[in-house]
Amino acid sequence: MDDHVAPVDLAKAYRLLNHGPTVLVSARHDGVDDVMAAAWACALDFSPPKVTVVLDKATRTRALVEASGLFVLQVPTARQADLVYAVGSRSLADDPDKLARCGVELFVADCVEADDGIEAADGNDAGKGIGAVDAPLVAGCSAWLACRLVPEPHNQQAYDLFIGEVVAAWADTRVFRDGHWYFDAAGPGWRSLHYIAGGQFYAIGESVLAKDAGGTRAD
Amino acid sequence: MDDHVAPVDLAKAYRLLNHGPTVLVSARHDGVDDVMAAAWACALDFSPPKVTVVLDKATRTRALVEASGLFVLQVPTARQADLVYAVGSRSLADDPDKLARCGVELFVADCVEADDGIEAADGNDAGKGIGAVDAPLVAGCSAWLACRLVPEPHNQQAYDLFIGEVVAAWADTRVFRDGHWYFDAAGPGWRSLHYIAGGQFYAIGESVLAKDAGGTRAD
Repeated sequence: MDDHVAPVDLAKAYRLLNHGPTVLVSARHDGVDDVMAAAWACALDFSPPKVTVVLDKATRTRALVEASGLFVLQVPTARQADLVYAVGSRSLADDPDKLARCGVELFVADCVEADDGIEAADGNDAGKGIGAVDAPLVAGCSAWLACRLVPEPHNQQAYDLFIGEVVAAWADTRVFRDGHWYFDAAGPGWRSLHYIAGGQFYAIGESVLAKDAGGTRAD
Repeated sequence: MDDHVAPVDLAKAYRLLNHGPTVLVSARHDGVDDVMAAAWACALDFSPPKVTVVLDKATRTRALVEASGLFVLQVPTARQADLVYAVGSRSLADDPDKLARCGVELFVADCVEADDGIEAADGNDAGKGIGAVDAPLVAGCSAWLACRLVPEPHNQQAYDLFIGEVVAAWADTRVFRDGHWYFDAAGPGWRSLHYIAGGQFYAIGESVLAKDAGGTRAD
């Protein structure tokens, strides 16, 4: 694992998604890896941290998530815009070499067997799950959230809406550390991407501090 | 209604939220208006357009949404950062003058009685609903999505997760027109806000076009 990739405190994991970046969704099952792009991913809860993501029935990644019960949301950077657009436009079903062709390099995160004392919805301890995360991470991103699927068959079928509980998170310390993003200092290549349509994204921009902010909220 | 506020084609309404802005949620019931801030709002479907938003049980806005079955998501601008932080920090329950104190000005949108031929989940035609939208819009924002609640009691109770079907949308043509955002041209005050924590937002930044983008995707 890259020296710059460090674990993120689960209590701060929501901040990796709070600004609404387009993400890459990766999953692995039975020796098959896939990665797709998703603009429709969102934080859902603080503790234990949960996320939502919309996975269309046509995607191979969705099938891998359903089979493995695991997925990773990662925050790609401005320098990865072509990669994000490519994995969002090609399907593994049509192109078995999709990932190589799109320039995707995968790695496995160091698994920290931390017991965080949080009981998951199914009664299993979330900490236990960390050792079991067997999902591929996309290299070059700024942050990663490994998620265990919280099965909700009605949401998945009716809305393509998947809920995950974050069991581990990491970030590249060059742009996120101590619970804070440093987009302004890290350089333009590190900015998150926010997809609109037709291959057009916006990069995240400048920091704006509310006048009355005293660090009293969610900090 | 301000001359610059124009209807947005429902087929393009998802683009108002696709880049993950922090939104204001407004609702009205029985003569009571409230507005809150929500970083956890997301597009859910294209046609009919749907959205998700997380509404904490402690918020008065949630009670108004549950009672009226309607809410509006609006995209505030960088110049409204103090307002967004203020409505997200104060509660109508503690402060009956919350909206005035936060500088919130409300207006009612012109209702277009358009039959779009789309049947809603409950069998009612979505077009019919437009005439019935009785929810306050926050002045000075860049875009507004009027939503009819799609009742999902389990999601609302277990996850504070609300689903809405967009029945009408509007945007300020100075920053969104013909289905496209013009953040780069509109000036810094019009950029959307993306909340992190502790009163800190990022404004949306520069446009990034994928190399292979040919307008073939979702355009």
